[in-house]
This record gives sequence, C-alpha cells and structure tokens, in this order.
Amino acid sequence: MSSKHGYSGYVANLLERLGAGVGDEVLVEKNGLQLRGFVMARYEFGEPGVLVLKLDNGYNVGVKIDPSTKVSKLSSAAVPAFKPPPPPQPSQNLPKVAIVNTGGTIASRIDYRTGGVKPALSASDLVSIVPEIAEIANVSAEILMQVVSENMTPKHWTTIAQRVNTLFNEGFDGIVITHGTDTMGYTAAALSFALQNPPVPVVLVGAQRSSDRPSSDAAKNLIAAVETAAKAPFAEVVVCMHGWHSDEEIFIHRGTRVVKFHTSSRGAFQSINATPIAVHTQRGIEIIDDRHHSRGWDSYRYHPNFDDRAMLVKFTPGMHPQTLEILAEKMNLRGLILEGTGLGHVASSFIPVLKRLTDSGMFVGMTSQCRFGRVNMNVYENGRDLLRAGVTPLDNMLAETALVKLMWVLGFLGEKAQLDEVRNLMARNLCGEIGGRTRPQPTFHGDELHGL
Amino acid sequence: MSSKHGYSGYVANLLERLGAGVGDEVLVEKNGLQLRGFVMARYEFGEPGVLVLKLDNGYNVGVKIDPSTKVSKLSSAAVPAFKPPPPPQPSQNLPKVAIVNTGGTIASRIDYRTGGVKPALSASDLVSIVPEIAEIANVSAEILMQVVSENMTPKHWTTIAQRVNTLFNEGFDGIVITHGTDTMGYTAAALSFALQNPPVPVVLVGAQRSSDRPSSDAAKNLIAAVETAAKAPFAEVVVCMHGWHSDEEIFIHRGTRVVKFHTSSRGAFQSINATPIAVHTQRGIEIIDDRHHSRGWDSYRYHPNFDDRAMLVKFTPGMHPQTLEILAEKMNLRGLILEGTGLGHVASSFIPVLKRLTDSGMFVGMTSQCRFGRVNMNVYENGRDLLRAGVTPLDNMLAETALVKLMWVLGFLGEKAQLDEVRNLMARNLCGEIGGRTRPQPTFHGDELHGL
Repeated sequence: MSSKHGYSGYVANLLERLGAGVGDEVLVEKNGLQLRGFVMARYEFGEPGVLVLKLDNGYNVGVKIDPSTKVSKLSSAAVPAFKPPPPPQPSQNLPKVAIVNTGGTIASRIDYRTGGVKPALSASDLVSIVPEIAEIANVSAEILMQVVSENMTPKHWTTIAQRVNTLFNEGFDGIVITHGTDTMGYTAAALSFALQNPPVPVVLVGAQRSSDRPSSDAAKNLIAAVETAAKAPFAEVVVCMHGWHSDEEIFIHRGTRVVKFHTSSRGAFQSINATPIAVHTQRGIEIIDDRHHSRGWDSYRYHPNFDDRAMLVKFTPGMHPQTLEILAEKMNLRGLILEGTGLGHVASSFIPVLKRLTDSGMFVGMTSQCRFGRVNMNVYENGRDLLRAGVTPLDNMLAETALVKLMWVLGFLGEKAQLDEVRNLMARNLCGEIGGRTRPQPTFHGDELHGL
Repeated sequence: MSSKHGYSGYVANLLERLGAGVGDEVLVEKNGLQLRGFVMARYEFGEPGVLVLKLDNGYNVGVKIDPSTKVSKLSSAAVPAFKPPPPPQPSQNLPKVAIVNTGGTIASRIDYRTGGVKPALSASDLVSIVPEIAEIANVSAEILMQVVSENMTPKHWTTIAQRVNTLFNEGFDGIVITHGTDTMGYTAAALSFALQNPPVPVVLVGAQRSSDRPSSDAAKNLIAAVETAAKAPFAEVVVCMHGWHSDEEIFIHRGTRVVKFHTSSRGAFQSINATPIAVHTQRGIEIIDDRHHSRGWDSYRYHPNFDDRAMLVKFTPGMHPQTLEILAEKMNLRGLILEGTGLGHVASSFIPVLKRLTDSGMFVGMTSQCRFGRVNMNVYENGRDLLRAGVTPLDNMLAETALVKLMWVLGFLGEKAQLDEVRNLMARNLCGEIGGRTRPQPTFHGDELHGL
C-alpha cells in the first residue's frame, strides 16, 4: 500500500500504466468535465477508487475513477522553486523589526510526498518571498523553533517571551512572531501577561493557507504585521490576521481578546467582547480603540513563567460533579476555569464539590460557554450559590484567556500563593482581558447591570 | 446580616430610618440625578455602602450611598398581580397545540425577597398573560417539570421525549416546550435524535428576560413558538428565539445547529454552520431552508434513551494526555468528544493515548473549538496521525451536538455496540446535524475539500 502512496486496485494500476505518481500533473476527463491537477498521496480512510488531485486554486478534490474516466499525464513532478530576489539593502532611515519564527502554516509548504503541509520555509525565505517588507523596515529574521501550534505548551510561551524580552533590549522598534493559527490566541494571551505594557509592539501573525497556494493570506498578513511592528503607536501584544468580513482589511486584535473563530476561512480570527485595536488597510493603520498602551519602557513588566497545573473544563449536561474532584486530585491541579452555561452556571449538584475544592485552597473561576457577553452570577439562585461556594466570576474574560491568565498568575505568585491573592489578580484587569465596553457610568455599581 | 437582606452599616440604618425594606419603591437623588426603583436584596460580594434598585426598565443598579445622597420612600412592597383575562373560548377551527412547561426564565418572576429570579408562573399563567396565543391555536398547557436548565440531564431529555411522543399520539398539531435558555441548545439536539422526523413541529422556546420585566422577550417568543407549532409546514425539533440582529425577527433554528451565543442579549441564539430553518415576523413564518422534514408520520422514529457515559473535552495548550485516560477510566466512559484546535487537532503527545483508547473500543470523535467551519484532518500531519489513531472526524457538527448525539447513539445501540457501529452512526447525518452548505458537487469526493 504505502509504496503506492495509499492507492490500490484500479487507481494504482492506472497510475502505473500512465507512469504517473505523486506530484505529477494529470488531466482527468469525466462526464464532460475536465480537471487538471497534481496527484496527491491518498490518506487511510478514503473511499477506494478515488484519485486525489491538488487543483491550481489550492483545493484538493477526490475524483471517483471508473473505466469511463480518461486520465492522462501532463508533466512530471517538479518541486516548485522560489526565485529569491536580491537581498534588500538595509536603510538607515527605516525602523528595525525582528521576525521570530516559531512555526505554522505561514512558514509551511505542501509536501508533495504525503500530500500534507509541513514547515519548510526559513524566516529569511519569508522575507525573500515578500520583498515589500524590506521597504517598511530593516528586518532581522530568525528561527526560534519549528512547532506546529497545537503542540505549543506553556514552556514554549516562556521561551518565546524570554527571546522577545532580549530583542526589546537590543533596541528593535517592533517584534513580529510567526505562529501557527490553531493556538495563536492562547500564545497571544500568554505573551500579553508575560510581557505587560511592552516597550514596542509584539505582533503575532500566521496564515490560514500555505504560502505556495495562490489564495494564501501569508504575504498580506506579514506585510501588515511588519508595518504594525514598525509604525503602530500602540505597544501591546496583538494578533494580526485577515479580517472576518473583508480580505482588504487586516485586523489587529488585542492578544487577550482574540480567538480562532473559523476552521478554514482566511478571516478566521475575531475579537470577542471588544473591538480590534486597529485595522490595517492599503491606507495604513487605522486606530479603532484609542485606550491602548503606547510605546515606551515606563510601565514594562516582564514575568515569563507559567504553572500548567490548571485546567479548563466545559460544563455540559450529564457531567458528573466528581469529574472535577478526580481531575483536581489526579492532575494535581492548583486551579480550574469553568466554562459554565449562560450567565455562569453549572448544575447545582456541582456546588458541594466546588465548595470543597475552594475550601482546600484551589482557585475556581467562572466564564461562559456563550462566546459573547459577560457572566453575572447574581441573577439566579444557582449563580448566587456558586458565589457562596467560593467560585470567582470572571466578567467577560474569554475562557481561553482565563486559563492562560490563571497559569500565569500561579507562576507569578509561586507555590506559596494564597487563594485570595490568586482571586484578586484574576479579577483585576492587567492587560485589557476583562471589562470594558459595557461598563456603565461610574456613579453606579457596574457589576449588577446584567443587560446588554 | 441576612435579616437586613444583605445590607449593613450606613445603608441598613438609612433603610431602617425610612421604614423601607426589600420590595419597597424609593427615590434616590444624587449629584442632580434622580433614580426611582424597587429596593432589592444585596448579594454577598458587593461593595459596602451600595443600595441596589430594580429600575422600571428591568435593570438592577447599585447606587453608592453617602450622607449627601437623598433617599425617600415612595410606596410599600406589593407583589405585582397579573389580571388573567377570561379564559379563551376553544374554537373548532384552530389547530391544537400542547404547551409543555419544563422551567426556565420564560416561566420565571423576580423574587423580591432574594432579588433573584425564581420559577413561578404555571403554564396556564403563560397563556393568560399572552392572550394572543388563544387566537392562533387551541392551547392545552401543562407543567411537566420545573427545572432550571443548567440542571437538565439526559434523564430529563428522556422524560420530555416520552411526554412529547404521547402528545403526538393524542393528535396535537404541534408541541411547544418552554425551557431555560442555558442548555436549551443541548435539549433541542437531544429531542432531535430522540424524536427523529417527528409528525408535527416540536418547538423549544424560552426568554432571556423574565416576563415581569418590560424588556421581556417572553411574549413575542411564545407567540412565535405557538404559531410555528400550529402552522409551520416543517416538522422538526426547533428553537424559537429572538434573532441575533433584530428584535422584530424571531428565528426558528434547527435543534441540532443552535447554541446560546450571548450570555444576556435577547438575541442570544445563533445557528452555526447553517441558516435558521425559518424566521417569524409580523407577516408570519418565512421559510429560509426548504430542505426540511415535512409534517407526517411516515418516517417518524422514536428512541428516547441516552447513555451519559460520554464526555466533551476541550483541548487546551498544556493539557496532559493522561487526562483523557484518567477520565475514561474513573468516569467509566464509553465515548469522548474532543473540541480540538483549528481543523481538528490536539497535541501530538495525545496520539498514543488516543490510540489506546480507541483500541480498547472507546469512541473518540473530533470537533473544533473554532465555532465556525468544519474539521479536516487530512491537511496536516498531526490530523492524519489522529485519523490513524482511530479518531473519527465529525465534519461541521457542533461539539455540543456531537456530545448529545454520542449519548444518544450509545443509548440506541446499547451495551453491546461495536465501535464501528458507533462510528458509522456518528458520521452519518440523522437530522441535519452534519454536512450541508459547503458540500461540493456530488461528482467529487467531498471530504477532501478543505477550503471555505
């Protein structure tokens, strides 16, 4: 099987007759339709008798092959080569931007052997295939790690934060971090807490389509990221990705407020319970939220450590309360973030367990599995009981950000942290992760307003 | 403390001097502002010195009281009474609709003693305060249970399904189920699987604001629900709630595709990866998705049992792989739904554990924590490795719906179910929960298209 790249039976024989293999370009004619594409390797669970092609538009399609289907070979596999332009001439007048590559699709190419996408481009390749960035900044690029983003852990967050802190001290005007999109929101939140009020912008950027696909968003995103790092007046940790609605707009999201909101769309990222800080268009950077932190060293705080003895648990109907105790004990947890229902609820059967956990010194914070809005545990009896059981409401903080923040708070305060200290820090706004927008006038006590 | 409804110090003394207590109407004058409202009980974690009022618009506000604040009592507490209109005269010509009350805000009222919201109205009260519904249908109302929706369990789903099945056999033209909003999406999915291709519409309805608040959505939602049950051409399990964008439109969402998407907005519900089936406006019911199941008994399938030995786990960076083994063993799980990242990934460190779990006969299904889009585990190496480890990709199925469906599949197939049977049913479209919209032309093998 594997020697035929996953093909068997009729299709394998056909390819052998044609002398065609993975990576070769073929023409398939069927029912009056013509399809031209590169033969891709076949994955395990596919329907038999299907030939997989990568089309010019970057999509893979599987074509059911039967004896009436005509297949002809057009050309042999050739690994596409990038022609690097001459290296850019450094200019004294341009800002200095460091690009730190950590992995992900923005630095990936199709592997024509397996049909999958693999990290392949070095950071300097990125610069050479997007020459526009040399006109924006004097760019210095490096590969810090090559980690697909679902494999990122709090240890990687620390490594990235340490490197960025060093680059701050080397005098760069902005830092760009290329990163896989899957967990980019989590890393952005982590760097927000690790590098609070940074002296210059820290811009995470990725791509939803690899850079050898015509529909790739890599170049546009990278240009916007470098321009943001070089010129933006705000100095925060941000995510710079295609906007939700329009490809002409690259949104610059606050790192503590952004999630990947679509599995495959180029406009996959969205700020939740907040607007993006700014938007990048052909006209440059337009500020949306002017309550941002500005460039400068004055209030910079660097604390790169995380403690991963914390978990996010999404409450669902039928979940057993002892689940939490088992996790707390077996995983040696110091804290727990709940994704409750609605305004921040779990079944009342959980309340005695939660009380025991908080009584034992464990932090339990409440967020909502509704993507939008804030928790308010004062409206219903169940919510009040949860407050009495020692659960801390986390307002409109994203569940993912709450988990990252908890890991940071536990790392920051260390082993001897008192529960009250953890609660105070978790409920306090450190870098735009909580509150905002729906706050009422200061005369009135805000936490009780539970409307829109 | 508790005898003063949570007030202490200056505010408690002030209330005592005024002879005012919880439920009394007062006028507060401060900094030139006047506020008129009902005194509410104070919750535990509030700032001291704050008086909480319920305003006419239904909002609670806390007012900081100091000696410069003037407070006067306007009237004493009186439990607002509903004046029930004369009972509607049954008309031979109207459709017959059964309203089954299960609890929740739509049947709730403010408890002026605790300041919280408590279930209070009977189903027939609902009819008497929304007399319009008597012009739409001959309504028969009952209280099946009084359960706040975060306390709903698979056992409740079975009880509701059994009751609805009985009502089908009694010849009703449509069924309305009032339900708390927190887990309404889960119950809607559960009833979709338990009552497949129902003979008449099954309409879940709730309210985000209790019915004694002027901003309540209860009446509009209930009218739309009764009209849908009575007259809609489609017979599916649906959720009928205020639309996301406009209060003039009540959306009718397919039960397997809907989530609560905002904690407090009246337009809290949204169909994900699908359009609503229809929209209810003043002009009546407008169909959006005409690929619906129509009224009639032909293909009705009734299987009300669920097995709750299944869990939903949201993968996050730093999560330890053994978490899954511990949960599987200690909670005696038969199946697991993962909310992976992006196109359906978890850290590669999870792959050996997942292989062991599926080898032992446990079902593991993959959904995405991105709210929109479908999983595709053929694009990246990590996804392919997960497929090889026996993880079943669940396309664009909602994670919540996938969990409910798994509980249903396990209950339907029983203890002796083979893993392959579970996988086949999970991947097959039973009631609109999977696929649709982004399906390519039938000539091509759809599962490999990983674009938008």
